[in-house]
Amino acid sequence: MSKEIRFNAFVMNCVGHMAPGLWRHPRDRSDRYVDLEHWTDLARLLERGYFDGVFLADVLGPYDVYQGRPDAAIYSGIQIPVNDPMMLVPAMAGVTEHLGFGVTCALTYEHPYSFARRASTLDHLTKGRFGWNIVSGYLNSAARNFGFEAQTEHDDRYELAEEYLEVCYKLWEQSWQTGAVRRDRKSGVFADPAKVHGINHLGTHFKVPGFNLSEPSPQRTPVLYQAGASRRGKKFAAKHAECVFVSAPTAEIVKRYVQDLRLQAAELGRESILIFSMFTVIVAPTETEAKDRVREYLSYVDHLGALVLMSGWTGVDLSAYGLDEELQATQTRANQSALESFTVADPGRRWKIREIAEFVGLGGRAPVVSGSPQIVADRLQEWVETTGVDGFNLTYAVMPETYEHIIELLVPELQKRGVYKKAYRPGTFREKLFGQGSFLPQSHPGSGYRRE
Amino acid sequence: MSKEIRFNAFVMNCVGHMAPGLWRHPRDRSDRYVDLEHWTDLARLLERGYFDGVFLADVLGPYDVYQGRPDAAIYSGIQIPVNDPMMLVPAMAGVTEHLGFGVTCALTYEHPYSFARRASTLDHLTKGRFGWNIVSGYLNSAARNFGFEAQTEHDDRYELAEEYLEVCYKLWEQSWQTGAVRRDRKSGVFADPAKVHGINHLGTHFKVPGFNLSEPSPQRTPVLYQAGASRRGKKFAAKHAECVFVSAPTAEIVKRYVQDLRLQAAELGRESILIFSMFTVIVAPTETEAKDRVREYLSYVDHLGALVLMSGWTGVDLSAYGLDEELQATQTRANQSALESFTVADPGRRWKIREIAEFVGLGGRAPVVSGSPQIVADRLQEWVETTGVDGFNLTYAVMPETYEHIIELLVPELQKRGVYKKAYRPGTFREKLFGQGSFLPQSHPGSGYRRE
Repeated sequence: MSKEIRFNAFVMNCVGHMAPGLWRHPRDRSDRYVDLEHWTDLARLLERGYFDGVFLADVLGPYDVYQGRPDAAIYSGIQIPVNDPMMLVPAMAGVTEHLGFGVTCALTYEHPYSFARRASTLDHLTKGRFGWNIVSGYLNSAARNFGFEAQTEHDDRYELAEEYLEVCYKLWEQSWQTGAVRRDRKSGVFADPAKVHGINHLGTHFKVPGFNLSEPSPQRTPVLYQAGASRRGKKFAAKHAECVFVSAPTAEIVKRYVQDLRLQAAELGRESILIFSMFTVIVAPTETEAKDRVREYLSYVDHLGALVLMSGWTGVDLSAYGLDEELQATQTRANQSALESFTVADPGRRWKIREIAEFVGLGGRAPVVSGSPQIVADRLQEWVETTGVDGFNLTYAVMPETYEHIIELLVPELQKRGVYKKAYRPGTFREKLFGQGSFLPQSHPGSGYRRE
Repeated sequence: MSKEIRFNAFVMNCVGHMAPGLWRHPRDRSDRYVDLEHWTDLARLLERGYFDGVFLADVLGPYDVYQGRPDAAIYSGIQIPVNDPMMLVPAMAGVTEHLGFGVTCALTYEHPYSFARRASTLDHLTKGRFGWNIVSGYLNSAARNFGFEAQTEHDDRYELAEEYLEVCYKLWEQSWQTGAVRRDRKSGVFADPAKVHGINHLGTHFKVPGFNLSEPSPQRTPVLYQAGASRRGKKFAAKHAECVFVSAPTAEIVKRYVQDLRLQAAELGRESILIFSMFTVIVAPTETEAKDRVREYLSYVDHLGALVLMSGWTGVDLSAYGLDEELQATQTRANQSALESFTVADPGRRWKIREIAEFVGLGGRAPVVSGSPQIVADRLQEWVETTGVDGFNLTYAVMPETYEHIIELLVPELQKRGVYKKAYRPGTFREKLFGQGSFLPQSHPGSGYRRE
């Protein structure tokens, strides 16, 4: 039997996420991101399509590499303005029963003591459907607004992240022992103080003597996501992540990433990491209609916005070139290499700036797959078999139409093939994803902190 | 005509808030605080009773003055565990249309750049119904878990708060000019970068060059609450607060507070500050039933929990005494004075520890009013006329029964007397409260930062 395929929706609390300019499409509703109903409608839709979860990206600063200022990002609505992603979870949880939530929270800018409580609160309110995408920092523009000159060096950020996770594990797993909470109306004991322990953490970056302010939530530690692609990032993911996102344009690169990550995880005794490949899926009843749809969507791509994104991702200010100029390898060796990390599909190629903008197009930095339900299903199954991923992190071109089409056309096709669920598993997000317990498994380093 | 009376509900994302032990009452549902439905049900109920808002208290550490440790608080469920209050707002907003939200956020523990975004996000998602209760710090047990030895000195905290507010005003009022956001699908302009300005804040505590990550929300600056009772706190409230909470046991003290605050505000050219007096209202169809109800409720008061609260509020460890001992003025001059700040109703009195516990009883540190709808309405109207407050911050004894009784019995009586609204005003929270614009009024110092 073929392997089960899982879907996540990859969205962001902003106007323009991965498909620059598509907010201008007549049927697009992205600019309603400020409305609660926008998100509750999306949550209901995704649960109707048995998506595992909705994954919320985030940044805490504007994209300002292009032209060395944020103007183009503001002009085109490229991930700015951007609202807080955590605040969407309670509302979306209120209208769903099964959908999971993976929320990006950069640990650089919030103390673990208050963050642990926020996460526990969301895990309570969602009845155990909360996941945390661990990000150790990203944009210099964010760091500057928190009073730093620039962000901390890449590898140092991961050292900080290690300690941050340690504090969180202690708060979530260790501070409230199993059975500490009694809720006993007769005896008047709410919780047994002998089973609530200060964590007495005294580290390099943090000093936290106390216990978690929240009582243990259904999952204790939320489902942990990570998307680290660097060597250090992958090492961190292999150790901590339960779900990993990978975005790369070819199956070959993804396959290598998956093999490497699973090997590293296995060496640490870890099991069952779910890996999701970023994809944009444009599906229509027929091939012709799909082609027309893609052509129509492409006519809304904002090339300026695309270059803003690519400049931010690579650190290369692409405004220095005309649209028809070629990126000069000799002038920009370092930059060329940064760019290639996104465009490795065709490593020898010389890129015109316009082509880079078109490369971003509808899908950011991941493949765009389009066609009839049968064709798309074939492509996804092939990708899964070649690369070993467990599912897809699906971006949208037009919100929410991209998901509506996937759910109306593609999901039934995959179900017919027996590779897509027809019902959710019972239990918390972790139970639904892994079919085992609600807490971190024994093979996960966080579980070692648990105090029974 | 008599003055309109306004109601707020005073709650907290925890089991035991102001009425220690009452969570054990057979009809009490406080220990369901971890469930979303608990809060959405409450929100619907309060809106049915035309409450202006729900006010969410918060602490970021346990009450550990009693016995010098948090054990008794844990045992009795006294404001510990305590979940994050902000996360309740989106869910409660999703099921209501008019109810406002006043959320306590201690500025000591989060950077203003990320806090400003969280607040803007909630103001967007609630369509302009968000309020912020500005707290500059509270418990030493909180400070220690953020890596400090103890909290900053009281007056220094207010200096920090002044700069924090300045950063927030700049982000909310100044960084996105009026008309900056265009949302123009035809031209492809989401926002005009010439109208989005970095705030270039370079202060003693914060350095924030950038602009708010969120586009302007319906109110820009949320409705500002404050509850400072100290000299410095009152000065801060007179300058910044639009709504003020006061908790004191006698009309005389409240009257003095109100006069003083309004005088200070007037000196600053401020107008229309709404002042809410903390009250616990136990209402029943008849006097006899009300008496029985109070007696029944009192039988659930947890005296240990009451002493935990009073020790935390005053800084006096009341565990040093037996329940029938008198607090010795000679031994504890400083402490006696701390205690008197809560029990000034009877300043010459010598208190037994048991009596202090009973004083906390059902209402924390505010009056408990009970009786038939007519009697309670008389008492509230009298209080308003004597003190000059605008309404009440109503705690609960039994959740949600206390509010159900108020809404079923007391609200109709007040409506009949023409002193309670029969419909919400249209517009944002600020418009509903003050009947003027959605933004800070010109008389408020925050409005001076606005850039038209």
